[in-house]
Amino acid sequence: MSYPFKTIALIGKHNNQEIAVLILDLAEYLTGLQYEVYIDHLTASHMSTDTYKALTLEEIGRQADLAVVMGGDGTMLNIARILASYDVPLIGINQGRLGFLTDLSTDSMLETLNEMLQGQYTTERRMLLYAEVIRDNNSVFNALAFNDVVLYRGMSSGMIEFQVSINNEYVNTMRSDGLIVATPNGSTAYALSSGGPILHPSLDLIELVPVCPHTLSNRPIVVGPDASIEVHMLSSLDSRVHCDSHSNFDLEQSDRIIVRRFPKTVRLLHSVNHSYYRMLREKLGWSELH
Amino acid sequence: MSYPFKTIALIGKHNNQEIAVLILDLAEYLTGLQYEVYIDHLTASHMSTDTYKALTLEEIGRQADLAVVMGGDGTMLNIARILASYDVPLIGINQGRLGFLTDLSTDSMLETLNEMLQGQYTTERRMLLYAEVIRDNNSVFNALAFNDVVLYRGMSSGMIEFQVSINNEYVNTMRSDGLIVATPNGSTAYALSSGGPILHPSLDLIELVPVCPHTLSNRPIVVGPDASIEVHMLSSLDSRVHCDSHSNFDLEQSDRIIVRRFPKTVRLLHSVNHSYYRMLREKLGWSELH
Amino acid sequence: MSYPFKTIALIGKHNNQEIAVLILDLAEYLTGLQYEVYIDHLTASHMSTDTYKALTLEEIGRQADLAVVMGGDGTMLNIARILASYDVPLIGINQGRLGFLTDLSTDSMLETLNEMLQGQYTTERRMLLYAEVIRDNNSVFNALAFNDVVLYRGMSSGMIEFQVSINNEYVNTMRSDGLIVATPNGSTAYALSSGGPILHPSLDLIELVPVCPHTLSNRPIVVGPDASIEVHMLSSLDSRVHCDSHSNFDLEQSDRIIVRRFPKTVRLLHSVNHSYYRMLREKLGWSELH
Amino acid sequence: MSYPFKTIALIGKHNNQEIAVLILDLAEYLTGLQYEVYIDHLTASHMSTDTYKALTLEEIGRQADLAVVMGGDGTMLNIARILASYDVPLIGINQGRLGFLTDLSTDSMLETLNEMLQGQYTTERRMLLYAEVIRDNNSVFNALAFNDVVLYRGMSSGMIEFQVSINNEYVNTMRSDGLIVATPNGSTAYALSSGGPILHPSLDLIELVPVCPHTLSNRPIVVGPDASIEVHMLSSLDSRVHCDSHSNFDLEQSDRIIVRRFPKTVRLLHSVNHSYYRMLREKLGWSELH
Repeated sequence: MSYPFKTIALIGKHNNQEIAVLILDLAEYLTGLQYEVYIDHLTASHMSTDTYKALTLEEIGRQADLAVVMGGDGTMLNIARILASYDVPLIGINQGRLGFLTDLSTDSMLETLNEMLQGQYTTERRMLLYAEVIRDNNSVFNALAFNDVVLYRGMSSGMIEFQVSINNEYVNTMRSDGLIVATPNGSTAYALSSGGPILHPSLDLIELVPVCPHTLSNRPIVVGPDASIEVHMLSSLDSRVHCDSHSNFDLEQSDRIIVRRFPKTVRLLHSVNHSYYRMLREKLGWSELH
Repeated sequence: MSYPFKTIALIGKHNNQEIAVLILDLAEYLTGLQYEVYIDHLTASHMSTDTYKALTLEEIGRQADLAVVMGGDGTMLNIARILASYDVPLIGINQGRLGFLTDLSTDSMLETLNEMLQGQYTTERRMLLYAEVIRDNNSVFNALAFNDVVLYRGMSSGMIEFQVSINNEYVNTMRSDGLIVATPNGSTAYALSSGGPILHPSLDLIELVPVCPHTLSNRPIVVGPDASIEVHMLSSLDSRVHCDSHSNFDLEQSDRIIVRRFPKTVRLLHSVNHSYYRMLREKLGWSELH
Repeated sequence: MSYPFKTIALIGKHNNQEIAVLILDLAEYLTGLQYEVYIDHLTASHMSTDTYKALTLEEIGRQADLAVVMGGDGTMLNIARILASYDVPLIGINQGRLGFLTDLSTDSMLETLNEMLQGQYTTERRMLLYAEVIRDNNSVFNALAFNDVVLYRGMSSGMIEFQVSINNEYVNTMRSDGLIVATPNGSTAYALSSGGPILHPSLDLIELVPVCPHTLSNRPIVVGPDASIEVHMLSSLDSRVHCDSHSNFDLEQSDRIIVRRFPKTVRLLHSVNHSYYRMLREKLGWSELH
Repeated sequence: MSYPFKTIALIGKHNNQEIAVLILDLAEYLTGLQYEVYIDHLTASHMSTDTYKALTLEEIGRQADLAVVMGGDGTMLNIARILASYDVPLIGINQGRLGFLTDLSTDSMLETLNEMLQGQYTTERRMLLYAEVIRDNNSVFNALAFNDVVLYRGMSSGMIEFQVSINNEYVNTMRSDGLIVATPNGSTAYALSSGGPILHPSLDLIELVPVCPHTLSNRPIVVGPDASIEVHMLSSLDSRVHCDSHSNFDLEQSDRIIVRRFPKTVRLLHSVNHSYYRMLREKLGWSELH
């Protein structure tokens, strides 16, 4: 599943008519270049054409040499998490403002894609997290996260209390709004708003970022990829675990949340002109001086 | 309702047997000193005595010259908010670690109280906030807050979006976990965990502290006591407004939350040995150097 | 010294030829409107004209009904500090990006100035600080600050240690890179970079912002305008006090720095279209969402 | 140079009589156990004995199987930096409050040391940084840092401006008080006061932490150990580079500071009861809840 690619799957943000049109343009263009084109079946279900083979994401995972995702970072996050198990390389295309994961613009996509399909690309592997909730010795929930596993207080207004251990070593007991366990990919998402550092996405690291901790000296901690992070819920207030905002689970007192690196990675292809730091400058407004 | 006091109301944390015993000791002591003693009727309902007159908080507000509250800061917060309308001076006594509002220790309370009842005290007035929710031009919720009015995202994991105006002037559109509108009294509570400054409690000020804002340059803003703060909910995600964690209300898209200073204040009496900065040093661990 | 104005002083950033040209245009325009125009003598010294009376800032302070300052916020800061003692109202004009203090653009200055000279303006008073260094009971330095009095470590790389008191009450002993004592005007300058809150400029407040404190729970504190802040230097490392970056003084161990509100204020005139919050949005990039 | 150790060097904080006594006690104890004992020649120069061989640190580096350092973290920092080139394992003993690097207490040192000398220890390797200043294509300064390389503004009060590149890729142009380039070991020192994250000391990582940046969205960035960090000075204000506070150099405009990982590491031995997280809890006051 690397260069040269023969089969290319196209996946779009759902229910977006503008993207549907762009996907069909792209499908036609790629077919003209002799690639075999698949379209994600959900994306295809909003199109009035059956020229292209519609596949589920799992089928795409098994059959496509490359997947092109059109939408925002949220769409890419969801697709990448599912396709990670199949090691399909991904290219992200954005209609509007470029995203961290969708770094090709629709304006220049045909030209840039053409170059990339001829081998002019760089490959980046990004790690994922796997979260599991243990209740009374049973695993009652599990999910993958490409950005973060977030433990969070629910509707009641009080802070939650929990105990954090890393590799079975006790770290601390925290009272806070929550705890973010993030990948480098997630370090520029919610974790950044909570005071976490930016972790270069090429690294395999896990950061623990407390959300509004009661103890003011609680700070973000960065640990290695082999850390097994365990959070033991102490408070009986309602709280939840969220994985990438897509999947969540209501926690109970005494639940244990285990977060570890997922063994598979997301494979992203970038144009050779792609620069991570330029992306940071643009998205964080670093050029703006007040 | 100032020195010399004749009638003293005693109010305890509910359902706390240890405090009930201390309250009875105190009642006996004060009766011996010829004060007329009332006991809050909820506090009294857990006692097996009818020696003292049991009054509701409203009756205490109208009849007592002084109210002594025994419990933690949470108890004091609730009592102070209710008694504010009656301008009864308050003394707070804490069993355990001293609180910001309950600054007398049970260990030395008889001695210190005795001094204070002889006029050895300082008086401090602290402001409150009044929050109102407007939906389709109707006021659908209102509540007082001694610490803070907190606008917060609910169970869904996304950030909420809202527009802030002050005195009808547009301030900004924010995407965040929430917004804390705090009094100086509340500046050392939740607002501090979110990066807000400490406002000296003698000041009449309102601080707006964003909680985990998406735009990293969103910072706490301090405005004057006459500011009318309006938050207009833009997102349709579930969100809530909390007042001092005691009262909350589910918000809908297009709701407007108005926060203003409440015209009445809380009147706290402190021992002449009380020091606000010593309290800060102790509670924030400023003496500890790592 | 309020509307209607008769005499107007023009003051420009020194050694700036472009501004010299704009000042002459403005002088001619105002003379045509029958105002008597003075030019600051330093500004005039770079011009090849003697049409207008050249006055020192002190003479401007005594004789002008209004001073128009052309340059950036740094220029305005310096002029405002000197003219504060004379209560001359000030209008700031900026060539480039608008400043917090220089909020008229050269592009539209004639039109806007004309409206303001006809009474279409709002007046704002901003407080100043007065700093004094006491060594062995002698006052060895004093200076005004419109933004901030900054106590700072010098060339040696260690943190400095000092003791802070407010109104003769001990606050804490701090080890840090420094301490910023800022006015509301200065709250959007250096204090903001150190984690201080934004104080609305209409307020009379003083904020104390620690710079990189060793104790992580040391936080910005906001006190009232009548606070007398005293810093007692404990460490013998080199350190300095800076006032608005214009004036500084080397400190020695045991020096005491006293900071108080200066009794005079800066009087700023704004166009009726001026909005402080719009200025914040623009300068802090609040419209930018990543 | 690993277990079993035969020759042990003892190094003490200079000019500290109390430590000199403890070192002699320890020397006698170790000699009794048949170890050959050396004493650092500077440490020995303050002792009135010639029972033990006095060696320079370089000789210790070449001849000792183990070095025991008695003092605070500052002493250990200096010794470790020098001995890193010789790969001598280090044990740190602290008289007062335990340090991050000096984690044995003098109270129990004989007992704990005895266990460690019998093989009851864990080994940890920590990375160092190597900084170099390039001026007009010449290397004009270089130094090692175990904690951090800090680029800092000097006595003038303005912010300095510089351009940061990583592996020849442009990152950003920053205006700030300075920039801290820290190792994981240094992440709990100055970098922590500037808002940097805690990096687990077992990791090979470099963190860049801006000090009071003018652009509020400038945040700490964590990069891998093979990053070559280049800072290009743009401003002409006085500024300096400090390495671990022990060595510093005055910078000029256009200087380039290059920071890279040093190829050798510091080898620390810990008691098997040592816990990094317990150390964090104690030194950062995490057990303290306000």
